[in-house]
Amino acid sequence: MAVAYPAHLQEEVERYLDGLRFADEPATAGLDEAMRYSLLGGGKRIRPVLTLATAEALGRDRAEVTPFAAAIELIHTYSLIHDDLPAMDDDDLRRGQPTCHIEFGEAVAILAGDGLFAEAIRLVTDRQQGDPRHVLAALGRLVAAAGVDGMVGGQYIDIRGETEDLRRLHELKTGRLIAASVECVPLLYGLSGPATIALGRFAAELGVLFQIVDDILDVTGEEEALGKPQGSDERLGKLTYVSLFGLDRARELAAESHRNARAALAESGFETETLDRIADYILTRTS
Amino acid sequence: MAVAYPAHLQEEVERYLDGLRFADEPATAGLDEAMRYSLLGGGKRIRPVLTLATAEALGRDRAEVTPFAAAIELIHTYSLIHDDLPAMDDDDLRRGQPTCHIEFGEAVAILAGDGLFAEAIRLVTDRQQGDPRHVLAALGRLVAAAGVDGMVGGQYIDIRGETEDLRRLHELKTGRLIAASVECVPLLYGLSGPATIALGRFAAELGVLFQIVDDILDVTGEEEALGKPQGSDERLGKLTYVSLFGLDRARELAAESHRNARAALAESGFETETLDRIADYILTRTS
Repeated sequence: MAVAYPAHLQEEVERYLDGLRFADEPATAGLDEAMRYSLLGGGKRIRPVLTLATAEALGRDRAEVTPFAAAIELIHTYSLIHDDLPAMDDDDLRRGQPTCHIEFGEAVAILAGDGLFAEAIRLVTDRQQGDPRHVLAALGRLVAAAGVDGMVGGQYIDIRGETEDLRRLHELKTGRLIAASVECVPLLYGLSGPATIALGRFAAELGVLFQIVDDILDVTGEEEALGKPQGSDERLGKLTYVSLFGLDRARELAAESHRNARAALAESGFETETLDRIADYILTRTS
Repeated sequence: MAVAYPAHLQEEVERYLDGLRFADEPATAGLDEAMRYSLLGGGKRIRPVLTLATAEALGRDRAEVTPFAAAIELIHTYSLIHDDLPAMDDDDLRRGQPTCHIEFGEAVAILAGDGLFAEAIRLVTDRQQGDPRHVLAALGRLVAAAGVDGMVGGQYIDIRGETEDLRRLHELKTGRLIAASVECVPLLYGLSGPATIALGRFAAELGVLFQIVDDILDVTGEEEALGKPQGSDERLGKLTYVSLFGLDRARELAAESHRNARAALAESGFETETLDRIADYILTRTS
Protein backbone atom coordinates (compact mmCIF):
# COMPACT_ATOMS: atom_id res chain seq x y z
CA MET A 1 0.00 0.00 0.00
CA ALA A 2 1.32 3.42 -0.96
CA VAL A 3 2.48 5.82 1.73
CA ALA A 4 0.61 9.14 1.82
CA TYR A 5 2.25 11.86 -0.23
CA PRO A 6 2.74 15.34 1.31
CA ALA A 7 -0.21 16.76 -0.58
CA HIS A 8 -0.02 20.18 1.09
CA LEU A 9 3.39 20.76 -0.50
CA GLN A 10 2.14 19.52 -3.87
CA GLU A 11 -0.74 21.99 -3.64
CA GLU A 12 1.62 24.86 -2.82
CA VAL A 13 3.66 24.04 -5.92
CA GLU A 14 0.55 23.63 -8.05
CA ARG A 15 -0.77 27.02 -6.98
CA TYR A 16 2.52 28.74 -7.76
CA LEU A 17 2.80 27.06 -11.17
CA ASP A 18 -0.80 27.90 -11.99
CA GLY A 19 -0.07 31.57 -11.30
CA LEU A 20 2.72 31.73 -13.88
CA ARG A 21 2.14 33.49 -17.22
CA PHE A 22 4.84 33.41 -19.86
CA ALA A 23 3.51 35.71 -22.57
CA ASP A 24 1.98 39.13 -22.28
CA GLU A 25 1.00 39.80 -25.87
CA PRO A 26 -1.60 38.18 -28.16
CA ALA A 27 0.99 37.11 -30.75
CA THR A 28 2.59 34.60 -28.35
CA ALA A 29 -0.52 33.64 -26.38
CA GLY A 30 -0.63 30.28 -28.19
CA LEU A 31 2.91 29.49 -27.05
CA ASP A 32 1.98 30.37 -23.47
CA GLU A 33 -1.00 28.04 -23.83
CA ALA A 34 1.17 25.11 -24.97
CA MET A 35 3.67 25.71 -22.17
CA ARG A 36 0.94 25.86 -19.54
CA TYR A 37 -0.84 22.83 -21.03
CA SER A 38 2.22 20.69 -20.38
CA LEU A 39 3.23 22.39 -17.14
CA LEU A 40 -0.22 22.02 -15.59
CA GLY A 41 -0.88 18.51 -16.90
CA GLY A 42 -0.70 16.98 -13.45
CA GLY A 43 1.96 14.86 -11.87
CA LYS A 44 3.17 14.54 -8.31
CA ARG A 45 5.61 17.51 -8.52
CA ILE A 46 8.17 15.34 -6.77
CA ARG A 47 11.12 17.59 -7.61
CA PRO A 48 9.74 20.90 -6.32
CA VAL A 49 8.09 19.14 -3.39
CA LEU A 50 11.56 17.80 -2.49
CA THR A 51 12.89 21.35 -2.67
CA LEU A 52 10.21 22.66 -0.30
CA ALA A 53 10.64 19.70 2.06
CA THR A 54 14.41 20.25 2.12
CA ALA A 55 13.93 23.90 3.07
CA GLU A 56 11.67 22.69 5.87
CA ALA A 57 14.29 20.17 6.97
CA LEU A 58 16.80 23.02 7.24
CA GLY A 59 14.36 24.96 9.41
CA ARG A 60 13.63 27.57 6.73
CA ASP A 61 10.47 29.12 5.38
CA ARG A 62 9.41 27.11 2.34
CA ALA A 63 8.18 30.22 0.56
CA GLU A 64 11.77 31.41 0.32
CA VAL A 65 12.67 28.68 -2.18
CA THR A 66 9.41 28.42 -4.15
CA PRO A 67 10.68 30.21 -7.30
CA PHE A 68 13.65 27.85 -7.43
CA ALA A 69 11.40 24.84 -6.83
CA ALA A 70 9.10 25.95 -9.65
CA ALA A 71 12.09 26.45 -11.97
CA ILE A 72 13.03 22.80 -11.48
CA GLU A 73 9.51 21.70 -12.44
CA LEU A 74 9.63 23.89 -15.56
CA ILE A 75 12.89 22.21 -16.56
CA HIS A 76 11.43 18.77 -15.88
CA THR A 77 8.38 19.63 -18.00
CA TYR A 78 10.54 20.91 -20.85
CA SER A 79 12.47 17.63 -20.85
CA LEU A 80 9.24 15.59 -20.98
CA ILE A 81 7.98 17.62 -23.96
CA HIS A 82 11.22 17.08 -25.89
CA ASP A 83 11.51 13.41 -24.89
CA ASP A 84 7.99 12.76 -26.19
CA LEU A 85 8.73 14.20 -29.66
CA PRO A 86 8.42 11.89 -32.69
CA ALA A 87 12.20 12.01 -33.26
CA MET A 88 12.77 10.89 -29.67
CA ASP A 89 10.45 8.49 -27.80
CA ASP A 90 7.46 9.30 -30.03
CA ASP A 91 4.88 9.20 -27.25
CA ASP A 92 1.29 10.26 -27.94
CA LEU A 93 0.13 10.16 -24.33
CA ARG A 94 1.49 11.64 -21.15
CA ARG A 95 -0.46 11.21 -17.91
CA GLY A 96 -3.44 10.07 -19.96
CA GLN A 97 -3.51 13.26 -22.05
CA PRO A 98 -2.25 13.95 -25.59
CA THR A 99 1.39 14.98 -25.47
CA CYS A 100 2.31 18.55 -26.36
CA HIS A 101 3.20 17.83 -30.00
CA ILE A 102 -0.03 15.86 -30.52
CA GLU A 103 -2.06 18.75 -29.13
CA PHE A 104 -0.16 21.70 -30.63
CA GLY A 105 2.07 20.29 -33.38
CA GLU A 106 5.74 19.44 -33.35
CA ALA A 107 7.15 22.92 -33.99
CA VAL A 108 5.17 24.47 -31.15
CA ALA A 109 6.15 21.60 -28.84
CA ILE A 110 9.86 22.15 -29.53
CA LEU A 111 9.42 25.85 -28.78
CA ALA A 112 7.28 25.21 -25.70
CA GLY A 113 10.15 23.12 -24.31
CA ASP A 114 12.74 25.75 -25.24
CA GLY A 115 10.55 28.44 -23.74
CA LEU A 116 10.04 26.59 -20.46
CA PHE A 117 13.80 26.15 -20.10
CA ALA A 118 14.45 29.86 -20.60
CA GLU A 119 11.61 30.90 -18.31
CA ALA A 120 12.87 28.49 -15.64
CA ILE A 121 16.22 30.28 -15.51
CA ARG A 122 14.37 33.59 -15.46
CA LEU A 123 12.36 32.53 -12.42
CA VAL A 124 15.66 32.10 -10.60
CA THR A 125 17.38 35.26 -11.85
CA ASP A 126 14.32 37.48 -11.38
CA ARG A 127 12.41 36.02 -8.43
CA GLN A 128 14.68 33.92 -6.24
CA GLN A 129 15.62 35.88 -3.13
CA GLY A 130 18.85 35.43 -1.21
CA ASP A 131 22.54 36.25 -1.39
CA PRO A 132 23.27 36.56 -5.15
CA ARG A 133 26.45 34.55 -4.69
CA HIS A 134 24.45 31.63 -3.32
CA VAL A 135 21.69 31.99 -5.92
CA LEU A 136 24.34 31.81 -8.67
CA ALA A 137 25.91 28.72 -7.09
CA ALA A 138 22.55 26.95 -6.80
CA LEU A 139 21.65 27.92 -10.36
CA GLY A 140 24.98 26.54 -11.54
CA ARG A 141 24.18 23.22 -9.90
CA LEU A 142 20.72 23.21 -11.46
CA VAL A 143 21.86 23.82 -15.03
CA ALA A 144 24.69 21.30 -14.62
CA ALA A 145 22.00 18.77 -13.69
CA ALA A 146 20.03 19.78 -16.78
CA GLY A 147 22.93 19.80 -19.26
CA VAL A 148 25.35 17.40 -20.91
CA ASP A 149 26.57 16.01 -17.57
CA GLY A 150 22.94 15.50 -16.56
CA MET A 151 19.51 15.27 -18.13
CA VAL A 152 20.41 16.05 -21.75
CA GLY A 153 23.43 13.73 -21.65
CA GLY A 154 21.32 10.95 -20.13
CA GLN A 155 18.65 11.30 -22.79
CA TYR A 156 21.38 11.16 -25.43
CA ILE A 157 22.73 7.89 -23.98
CA ASP A 158 19.15 6.59 -23.82
CA ILE A 159 18.27 7.24 -27.46
CA ARG A 160 21.59 5.78 -28.60
CA GLY A 161 20.61 2.59 -26.75
CA GLU A 162 24.14 1.28 -26.72
CA THR A 163 25.02 1.38 -23.04
CA GLU A 164 24.71 -1.43 -20.54
CA ASP A 165 25.56 0.98 -17.75
CA LEU A 166 21.98 1.52 -16.71
CA ARG A 167 22.75 3.14 -13.38
CA ARG A 168 24.89 5.75 -15.10
CA LEU A 169 22.26 6.40 -17.77
CA HIS A 170 19.60 7.11 -15.18
CA GLU A 171 21.95 8.95 -12.89
CA LEU A 172 22.34 11.45 -15.72
CA LYS A 173 18.86 11.36 -17.24
CA THR A 174 16.77 11.44 -14.08
CA GLY A 175 18.97 11.28 -11.02
CA ARG A 176 20.88 14.53 -11.35
CA LEU A 177 17.79 16.72 -11.53
CA ILE A 178 16.13 14.92 -8.62
CA ALA A 179 19.36 15.28 -6.66
CA ALA A 180 19.58 18.96 -7.58
CA SER A 181 16.06 19.47 -6.19
CA VAL A 182 17.52 18.69 -2.77
CA GLU A 183 21.13 19.87 -3.08
CA CYS A 184 20.25 23.33 -4.35
CA VAL A 185 18.59 24.25 -1.08
CA PRO A 186 21.71 24.20 1.15
CA LEU A 187 23.53 25.95 -1.70
CA LEU A 188 20.86 28.68 -1.70
CA TYR A 189 21.61 29.25 1.98
CA GLY A 190 25.38 28.95 1.61
CA LEU A 191 25.46 25.86 3.85
CA SER A 192 28.09 23.13 3.60
CA GLY A 193 29.61 20.46 5.82
CA PRO A 194 28.92 16.78 6.63
CA ALA A 195 25.18 17.20 7.23
CA THR A 196 24.61 18.69 3.80
CA ILE A 197 26.85 16.03 2.25
CA ALA A 198 24.60 13.36 3.80
CA LEU A 199 21.65 15.23 2.30
CA GLY A 200 23.40 15.02 -1.07
CA ARG A 201 23.81 11.25 -0.68
CA PHE A 202 20.11 10.99 0.08
CA ALA A 203 19.31 12.98 -3.03
CA ALA A 204 21.46 10.83 -5.31
CA GLU A 205 20.04 7.59 -3.91
CA LEU A 206 16.51 8.90 -4.28
CA GLY A 207 17.11 9.42 -7.99
CA VAL A 208 18.12 5.79 -8.37
CA LEU A 209 15.15 4.60 -6.33
CA PHE A 210 12.78 6.67 -8.43
CA GLN A 211 14.01 5.10 -11.67
CA ILE A 212 13.96 1.49 -10.44
CA VAL A 213 10.37 1.89 -9.27
CA ASP A 214 9.50 3.55 -12.59
CA ASP A 215 10.84 0.53 -14.47
CA ILE A 216 8.96 -1.88 -12.18
CA LEU A 217 5.71 0.06 -12.65
CA ASP A 218 6.13 -0.03 -16.44
CA VAL A 219 5.72 -3.80 -16.16
CA THR A 220 3.37 -4.18 -13.20
CA GLY A 221 1.37 -0.95 -13.16
CA GLU A 222 -2.13 -0.42 -14.48
CA GLU A 223 -2.46 1.60 -17.66
CA GLU A 224 -5.07 3.88 -16.18
CA ALA A 225 -2.91 4.74 -13.18
CA LEU A 226 0.22 5.15 -15.30
CA GLY A 227 -1.45 7.34 -17.92
CA LYS A 228 0.47 5.52 -20.66
CA PRO A 229 0.29 2.04 -22.16
CA GLN A 230 1.65 -0.52 -19.71
CA GLY A 231 4.87 -2.15 -20.94
CA SER A 232 5.67 0.68 -23.36
CA ASP A 233 9.36 0.81 -22.38
CA GLU A 234 9.53 -2.95 -22.87
CA ARG A 235 8.05 -2.73 -26.36
CA LEU A 236 10.51 -0.01 -27.30
CA GLY A 237 13.26 -2.47 -26.41
CA LYS A 238 14.54 -0.03 -23.81
CA LEU A 239 17.03 -1.04 -21.21
CA THR A 240 15.33 -1.05 -17.83
CA TYR A 241 16.17 -2.41 -14.41
CA VAL A 242 13.54 -5.07 -15.01
CA SER A 243 14.75 -6.08 -18.48
CA LEU A 244 18.32 -6.24 -17.21
CA PHE A 245 17.88 -7.84 -13.77
CA GLY A 246 14.37 -9.31 -13.72
CA LEU A 247 11.45 -8.18 -11.60
CA ASP A 248 12.50 -9.80 -8.31
CA ARG A 249 16.02 -8.44 -8.34
CA ALA A 250 14.74 -5.00 -9.37
CA ARG A 251 12.49 -5.03 -6.31
CA GLU A 252 15.46 -5.91 -4.12
CA LEU A 253 17.48 -3.08 -5.65
CA ALA A 254 14.64 -0.68 -4.93
CA ALA A 255 14.48 -1.75 -1.30
CA GLU A 256 18.26 -1.37 -1.02
CA SER A 257 18.17 2.17 -2.51
CA HIS A 258 15.37 3.10 -0.16
CA ARG A 259 17.35 1.88 2.88
CA ASN A 260 20.40 3.87 1.74
CA ALA A 261 18.30 6.97 1.21
CA ARG A 262 16.70 6.76 4.65
CA ALA A 263 20.06 6.07 6.30
CA ALA A 264 21.58 9.18 4.71
CA LEU A 265 18.67 11.26 5.98
CA ALA A 266 19.07 9.92 9.51
CA GLU A 267 22.77 10.68 9.37
CA SER A 268 22.17 14.29 8.30
CA GLY A 269 20.61 15.12 11.67
CA PHE A 270 18.11 17.50 10.06
CA GLU A 271 14.37 17.46 10.71
CA THR A 272 13.62 15.15 7.82
CA GLU A 273 10.13 13.75 8.55
CA THR A 274 8.70 15.00 5.25
CA LEU A 275 11.74 13.86 3.26
CA ASP A 276 11.46 10.41 4.94
CA ARG A 277 7.84 10.30 3.89
CA ILE A 278 8.69 11.20 0.28
CA ALA A 279 11.29 8.40 0.16
CA ASP A 280 8.69 5.94 1.47
CA TYR A 281 6.15 7.20 -1.03
CA ILE A 282 8.54 6.79 -3.95
CA LEU A 283 9.23 3.18 -2.95
CA THR A 284 5.57 2.29 -2.60
CA ARG A 285 3.91 4.43 -5.28
CA THR A 286 1.65 2.69 -7.78
CA SER A 287 1.74 5.23 -10.60
CA MET B 1 31.86 47.56 -50.74
CA ALA B 2 31.79 45.91 -47.31
CA VAL B 3 33.46 47.61 -44.37
CA ALA B 4 36.22 45.57 -42.70
CA TYR B 5 35.01 43.46 -39.80
CA PRO B 6 36.98 43.51 -36.50
CA ALA B 7 38.60 40.16 -37.23
CA HIS B 8 40.81 40.22 -34.14
CA LEU B 9 37.71 40.07 -31.92
CA GLN B 10 36.20 37.33 -34.05
CA GLU B 11 39.41 35.33 -33.64
CA GLU B 12 39.36 35.80 -29.87
CA VAL B 13 35.81 34.45 -29.73
CA GLU B 14 36.66 31.60 -32.09
CA ARG B 15 39.61 30.54 -29.95
CA TYR B 16 37.54 30.56 -26.78
CA LEU B 17 34.71 28.57 -28.38
CA ASP B 18 37.16 26.08 -29.84
CA GLY B 19 38.55 25.47 -26.35
CA LEU B 20 35.17 24.43 -24.94
CA ARG B 21 34.41 20.76 -24.25
CA PHE B 22 30.96 19.75 -23.11
CA ALA B 23 31.31 16.06 -22.30
CA ASP B 24 33.99 14.29 -20.32
CA GLU B 25 32.93 10.67 -20.77
CA PRO B 26 32.82 8.42 -23.85
CA ALA B 27 29.07 7.79 -23.57
CA THR B 28 28.26 11.41 -24.40
CA ALA B 29 31.19 12.15 -26.72
CA GLY B 30 28.85 11.98 -29.73
CA LEU B 31 26.65 14.69 -28.25
CA ASP B 32 29.69 16.87 -27.63
CA GLU B 33 30.67 16.29 -31.27
CA ALA B 34 27.26 17.44 -32.55
CA MET B 35 27.31 20.52 -30.32
CA ARG B 36 30.81 21.47 -31.42
CA TYR B 37 29.99 20.75 -35.07
CA SER B 38 27.30 23.40 -35.02
CA LEU B 39 29.11 25.77 -32.67
CA LEU B 40 32.30 25.78 -34.74
CA GLY B 41 30.58 25.86 -38.12
CA GLY B 42 31.74 29.38 -38.85
CA GLY B 43 29.87 32.62 -38.91
CA LYS B 44 30.90 36.15 -38.07
CA ARG B 45 30.26 35.78 -34.30
CA ILE B 46 28.53 39.14 -34.41
CA ARG B 47 26.88 38.77 -30.99
CA PRO B 48 29.96 37.90 -28.91
CA VAL B 49 32.06 40.34 -30.93
CA LEU B 50 29.54 43.03 -29.96
CA THR B 51 29.96 42.00 -26.32
CA LEU B 52 33.74 42.29 -26.48
CA ALA B 53 33.55 45.59 -28.38
CA THR B 54 31.12 46.97 -25.80
CA ALA B 55 33.51 46.07 -22.97
CA GLU B 56 36.20 47.90 -24.90
CA ALA B 57 33.92 50.93 -25.34
CA LEU B 58 33.45 51.02 -21.56
CA GLY B 59 37.23 51.00 -21.10
CA ARG B 60 37.29 47.45 -19.69
CA ASP B 61 39.44 44.42 -20.37
CA ARG B 62 37.65 42.31 -23.00
CA ALA B 63 38.80 39.09 -21.36
CA GLU B 64 36.58 39.89 -18.37
CA VAL B 65 33.41 39.33 -20.42
CA THR B 66 34.52 36.49 -22.70
CA PRO B 67 32.56 33.71 -20.89
CA PHE B 68 29.40 35.79 -21.17
CA ALA B 69 30.11 36.56 -24.82
CA ALA B 70 30.61 32.86 -25.54
CA ALA B 71 27.37 32.00 -23.73
CA ILE B 72 25.48 34.27 -26.12
CA GLU B 73 27.00 32.48 -29.12
CA LEU B 74 26.03 29.08 -27.65
CA ILE B 75 22.45 30.30 -27.29
CA HIS B 76 22.47 31.65 -30.84
CA THR B 77 23.81 28.31 -32.12
CA TYR B 78 21.18 26.36 -30.19
CA SER B 79 18.46 28.50 -31.78
CA LEU B 80 19.84 27.87 -35.27
CA ILE B 81 19.90 24.10 -34.70
CA HIS B 82 16.28 24.07 -33.54
CA ASP B 83 15.12 26.51 -36.25
CA ASP B 84 16.63 24.26 -38.92
CA LEU B 85 14.74 21.15 -37.75
CA PRO B 86 12.29 19.48 -40.17
CA ALA B 87 9.32 20.53 -38.00
CA MET B 88 10.49 24.15 -38.16
CA ASP B 89 12.20 25.70 -41.20
CA ASP B 90 13.42 22.31 -42.50
CA ASP B 91 16.79 23.56 -43.71
CA ASP B 92 19.41 21.10 -44.97
CA LEU B 93 22.22 23.60 -45.28
CA ARG B 94 23.65 26.17 -42.91
CA ARG B 95 26.68 28.19 -43.98
CA GLY B 96 27.18 25.73 -46.84
CA GLN B 97 27.39 22.70 -44.54
CA PRO B 98 24.79 20.05 -43.68
CA THR B 99 22.66 21.22 -40.75
CA CYS B 100 22.98 19.43 -37.43
CA HIS B 101 19.99 17.11 -37.96
CA ILE B 102 21.19 16.16 -41.45
CA GLU B 103 24.61 15.29 -40.07
CA PHE B 104 23.62 13.64 -36.76
CA GLY B 105 19.90 12.89 -37.00
CA GLU B 106 16.94 14.75 -35.60
CA ALA B 107 17.00 13.42 -32.04
CA VAL B 108 20.66 14.30 -31.55
CA ALA B 109 20.07 17.74 -33.06
CA ILE B 110 17.26 18.49 -30.61
CA LEU B 111 19.52 17.42 -27.74
CA ALA B 112 22.53 19.32 -29.11
CA GLY B 113 20.40 22.48 -29.02
CA ASP B 114 19.11 21.73 -25.53
CA GLY B 115 22.64 20.97 -24.37
CA LEU B 116 24.09 24.18 -25.80
CA PHE B 117 21.43 26.20 -23.99
CA ALA B 118 22.21 24.54 -20.65
CA GLU B 119 25.96 24.83 -21.14
CA ALA B 120 25.57 28.50 -22.06
CA ILE B 121 23.99 29.26 -18.69
CA ARG B 122 26.71 27.20 -17.03
CA LEU B 123 29.43 29.28 -18.67
CA VAL B 124 27.93 32.30 -16.94
CA THR B 125 27.28 30.71 -13.53
CA ASP B 126 30.66 28.93 -13.41
CA ARG B 127 33.08 31.14 -15.33
CA GLN B 128 31.83 34.71 -15.48
CA GLN B 129 33.72 36.85 -12.96
CA GLY B 130 32.32 39.92 -11.28
CA ASP B 131 29.91 40.98 -8.56
CA PRO B 132 27.39 38.07 -8.33
CA ARG B 133 24.54 40.58 -8.14
CA HIS B 134 25.57 42.05 -11.48
CA VAL B 135 26.21 38.65 -13.05
CA LEU B 136 22.70 37.55 -12.05
CA ALA B 137 21.19 40.76 -13.48
CA ALA B 138 23.04 40.32 -16.79
CA LEU B 139 22.06 36.65 -16.94
CA GLY B 140 18.44 37.60 -16.31
CA ARG B 141 18.58 39.98 -19.28
CA LEU B 142 20.16 37.28 -21.44
CA VAL B 143 17.57 34.59 -20.72
CA ALA B 144 14.75 37.12 -21.12
CA ALA B 145 16.15 37.80 -24.60
CA ALA B 146 16.22 34.04 -25.26
CA GLY B 147 12.76 33.21 -23.90
CA VAL B 148 9.11 33.84 -24.68
CA ASP B 149 9.56 37.63 -24.74
CA GLY B 150 12.52 37.16 -27.07
CA MET B 151 13.99 34.57 -29.39
CA VAL B 152 11.62 31.67 -28.68
CA GLY B 153 8.56 33.93 -28.85
CA GLY B 154 9.79 35.42 -32.13
CA GLN B 155 10.33 32.01 -33.67
CA TYR B 156 6.82 31.05 -32.56
CA ILE B 157 5.35 34.12 -34.29
CA ASP B 158 7.46 33.30 -37.36
CA ILE B 159 6.29 29.69 -37.76
CA ARG B 160 2.67 30.74 -37.21
CA GLY B 161 3.12 33.12 -40.14
CA GLU B 162 0.05 35.16 -39.22
CA THR B 163 1.55 38.48 -38.22
CA GLU B 164 2.02 41.53 -40.36
CA ASP B 165 3.97 43.18 -37.59
CA LEU B 166 7.34 42.33 -39.06
CA ARG B 167 9.33 44.70 -36.92
CA ARG B 168 7.91 43.14 -33.75
CA LEU B 169 8.57 39.59 -35.05
CA HIS B 170 12.22 40.34 -35.67
CA GLU B 171 12.59 42.43 -32.55
CA LEU B 172 11.76 39.26 -30.62
CA LYS B 173 13.34 36.63 -32.86
CA THR B 174 16.66 38.31 -33.60
CA GLY B 175 16.74 41.78 -32.12
CA ARG B 176 16.53 40.97 -28.42
CA LEU B 177 19.55 38.67 -28.39
CA ILE B 178 21.62 41.08 -30.46
CA ALA B 179 20.57 43.87 -28.11
CA ALA B 180 21.42 41.71 -25.08
CA SER B 181 24.93 41.19 -26.49
CA VAL B 182 25.49 44.90 -25.89
CA GLU B 183 23.23 45.64 -22.92
CA CYS B 184 24.56 42.83 -20.74
CA VAL B 185 27.98 44.47 -20.55
CA PRO B 186 26.98 47.58 -18.56
CA LEU B 187 24.79 45.30 -16.44
CA LEU B 188 27.83 43.10 -15.71
CA TYR B 189 29.60 46.17 -14.39
CA GLY B 190 26.58 47.55 -12.56
CA LEU B 191 26.51 50.66 -14.76
CA SER B 192 23.38 52.67 -15.52
CA GLY B 193 22.46 56.19 -16.59
CA PRO B 194 21.87 58.05 -19.87
CA ALA B 195 25.05 56.83 -21.57
CA THR B 196 24.12 53.18 -21.10
CA ILE B 197 20.55 53.93 -22.19
CA ALA B 198 21.95 55.35 -25.45
CA LEU B 199 23.97 52.14 -25.78
CA GLY B 200 20.74 50.18 -25.38
CA ARG B 201 19.11 52.22 -28.17
CA PHE B 202 22.09 51.42 -30.37
CA ALA B 203 21.70 47.73 -29.57
CA ALA B 204 17.99 47.64 -30.40
CA GLU B 205 18.48 49.52 -33.66
CA LEU B 206 21.34 47.22 -34.64
CA GLY B 207 19.02 44.22 -34.32
CA VAL B 208 16.57 45.82 -36.76
CA LEU B 209 19.37 46.75 -39.16
CA PHE B 210 20.71 43.21 -39.08
CA GLN B 211 17.38 41.71 -40.05
CA ILE B 212 16.61 44.16 -42.86
CA VAL B 213 20.00 43.48 -44.44
CA ASP B 214 19.42 39.74 -43.98
CA ASP B 215 16.17 40.00 -45.92
CA ILE B 216 17.81 42.07 -48.66
CA LEU B 217 20.66 39.56 -48.99
CA ASP B 218 18.18 36.68 -49.28
CA VAL B 219 17.08 38.28 -52.56
CA THR B 220 20.26 39.89 -53.85
CA GLY B 221 23.04 37.78 -52.33
CA GLU B 222 25.03 35.07 -54.03
CA GLU B 223 24.28 31.51 -52.94
CA GLU B 224 27.92 30.71 -52.38
CA ALA B 225 28.45 33.67 -50.08
CA LEU B 226 25.16 33.08 -48.23
CA GLY B 227 25.76 29.36 -47.70
CA LYS B 228 22.10 28.67 -48.44
CA PRO B 229 19.95 28.80 -51.56
CA GLN B 230 19.31 32.38 -52.60
CA GLY B 231 15.65 33.36 -52.27
CA SER B 232 14.86 30.58 -49.78
CA ASP B 233 12.83 32.84 -47.48
CA GLU B 234 10.89 34.05 -50.50
CA ARG B 235 10.07 30.50 -51.60
CA LEU B 236 8.87 29.63 -48.09
CA GLY B 237 6.41 32.50 -48.43
CA LYS B 238 8.01 34.15 -45.41
CA LEU B 239 7.27 37.69 -44.52
CA THR B 240 10.41 39.74 -45.08
CA TYR B 241 11.18 43.43 -45.29
CA VAL B 242 11.62 42.94 -49.02
CA SER B 243 8.38 41.02 -49.58
CA LEU B 244 6.48 43.59 -47.53
CA PHE B 245 8.09 46.87 -48.66
CA GLY B 246 10.00 46.06 -51.84
CA LEU B 247 13.77 46.13 -52.32
CA ASP B 248 14.19 49.90 -52.67
CA ARG B 249 12.21 50.78 -49.56
CA ALA B 250 13.98 48.01 -47.60
CA ARG B 251 17.31 49.59 -48.53
CA GLU B 252 16.06 52.96 -47.31
CA LEU B 253 14.91 51.40 -44.04
CA ALA B 254 18.33 49.81 -43.59
CA ALA B 255 20.08 53.15 -44.13
CA GLU B 256 17.69 54.77 -41.65
CA SER B 257 18.37 52.10 -38.99
CA HIS B 258 22.09 52.48 -39.54
CA ARG B 259 21.87 56.25 -39.04
CA ASN B 260 19.87 55.79 -35.83
CA ALA B 261 22.36 53.23 -34.53
CA ARG B 262 25.35 55.46 -35.21
CA ALA B 263 23.59 58.47 -33.68
CA ALA B 264 22.89 56.53 -30.47
CA LEU B 265 26.55 55.52 -30.26
CA ALA B 266 27.69 59.12 -30.72
CA GLU B 267 25.29 60.20 -28.02
CA SER B 268 26.61 57.64 -25.53
CA GLY B 269 29.96 59.41 -25.33
CA PHE B 270 31.82 56.09 -24.98
CA GLU B 271 34.85 55.10 -27.06
CA THR B 272 32.80 53.37 -29.72
CA GLU B 273 35.14 53.10 -32.74
CA THR B 274 34.80 49.31 -32.93
CA LEU B 275 31.04 49.39 -32.39
CA ASP B 276 30.77 52.04 -35.14
CA ARG B 277 32.71 49.74 -37.42
CA ILE B 278 30.43 46.79 -36.63
CA ALA B 279 27.36 48.90 -37.46
CA ASP B 280 28.97 49.90 -40.78
CA TYR B 281 29.88 46.29 -41.49
CA ILE B 282 26.35 45.06 -40.83
CA LEU B 283 24.93 47.65 -43.26
CA THR B 284 27.40 46.79 -46.03
CA ARG B 285 27.92 43.04 -45.54
CA THR B 286 27.43 40.79 -48.55
CA SER B 287 26.80 37.48 -46.73
